[in-house]
Amino acid sequence: MISADERFAIHDLYAEYTACLDEGRLDDWLALFVEECLYRIVPRENYAANLPLSLVLCESKDMLRDRVVALQEANEYNIHTDRHLVSALRFRGRQQQCFGVEASFAVFQIDTEGVASLFAVGAYLDEIVFVDGRARFKAKTVIMDNSCVPHAISTPL
Amino acid sequence: MISADERFAIHDLYAEYTACLDEGRLDDWLALFVEECLYRIVPRENYAANLPLSLVLCESKDMLRDRVVALQEANEYNIHTDRHLVSALRFRGRQQQCFGVEASFAVFQIDTEGVASLFAVGAYLDEIVFVDGRARFKAKTVIMDNSCVPHAISTPL
Amino acid sequence: MISADERFAIHDLYAEYTACLDEGRLDDWLALFVEECLYRIVPRENYAANLPLSLVLCESKDMLRDRVVALQEANEYNIHTDRHLVSALRFRGRQQQCFGVEASFAVFQIDTEGVASLFAVGAYLDEIVFVDGRARFKAKTVIMDNSCVPHAISTPL
Repeated sequence: MISADERFAIHDLYAEYTACLDEGRLDDWLALFVEECLYRIVPRENYAANLPLSLVLCESKDMLRDRVVALQEANEYNIHTDRHLVSALRFRGRQQQCFGVEASFAVFQIDTEGVASLFAVGAYLDEIVFVDGRARFKAKTVIMDNSCVPHAISTPL
Repeated sequence: MISADERFAIHDLYAEYTACLDEGRLDDWLALFVEECLYRIVPRENYAANLPLSLVLCESKDMLRDRVVALQEANEYNIHTDRHLVSALRFRGRQQQCFGVEASFAVFQIDTEGVASLFAVGAYLDEIVFVDGRARFKAKTVIMDNSCVPHAISTPL
Repeated sequence: MISADERFAIHDLYAEYTACLDEGRLDDWLALFVEECLYRIVPRENYAANLPLSLVLCESKDMLRDRVVALQEANEYNIHTDRHLVSALRFRGRQQQCFGVEASFAVFQIDTEGVASLFAVGAYLDEIVFVDGRARFKAKTVIMDNSCVPHAISTPL
């Protein structure tokens, strides 16, 4: 159902995803999505109740681009760095060339004083396709367990 | 000593294990154990001192079933959801068809207000067998580093 | 560029690295480095600004040995146990027989009262070589995101 090489490529995609965010390489992060993509952050309660409201909803790569530019050039609040841990990749099957993949994550934020604290935990429910042999996100739904987030969500989860 | 396919199957077992718990699918969680199984939670200090006292001790799958039913139908305290991170699978050798596998974990709990906090960290010291080609737990010893747990232990670690 | 067996061996190296530290097996931890090695802990800010100051700097295995002996025989402060989570191994290419590998980590400390708390998050930027078929660290740079560490750094990260 899934080959070793596909597993490795998908693992590497998640590793690169977290590295891009934690190193502040948002343009590189953007490059991990295909043009017709979906990115959203949904509180776990809403997801469980099948309620449509998202905390963040980007329905195309252009909307993600807009978000990246805003972060790079406009936003000047909640200055911090991130550290993502991702765990337990779950391969949920494939429909033709699209893989359903889930994972658990924790994100820690480090403030300007150098203090780290837990920011978010949750799950990624993703659709992954291969483009020119490389795994890319077609859809990424971030289920945020802690709907009561300590600070504003600025950088992507 | 261990093939790539066995590695993948064992990885997938841990991924499914954490997903079952974090999604509240306790019947699915139960299905990851063989009938003659052992599940226990032991404080690190007791384990290091070779003291037998466990925080939780289930010596058969029926004892685990009992626990699941209690959680599903009786318990109404410490309402929360869990998020498990598991890391650094360690393959400790095999005795015939039984694999010794260890891993590190962190469990975060999210309360009814949507606030996440660290609940437990520790290690899994497990015995894994293959049944009809699928990896299943024969024995799972949860070493809990933080013996001073913030709340009652209700859902499995 | 990297074979499945090399991936597995490198994964196992990180798993063993964290297990050695979390189980207090510092001599075994030492054995994971080659003789001519580098180990350092650098605050993220210094690393980003290309400033040379390290929190810990060991430029040979003998310096690491000295540190281990100090921990085993001399130090009697900040008594605790550690729990490392490591995530998202990133294979950054190879130069001949030396692999560039990165990973993210979180370290929790458990004090003598059995209370766990977040101690450090950051990244490993490592150089790994194979000796007699086993992956070993030639250089390990620990980037510490939270330069404002809660307690003194005693045990290795």
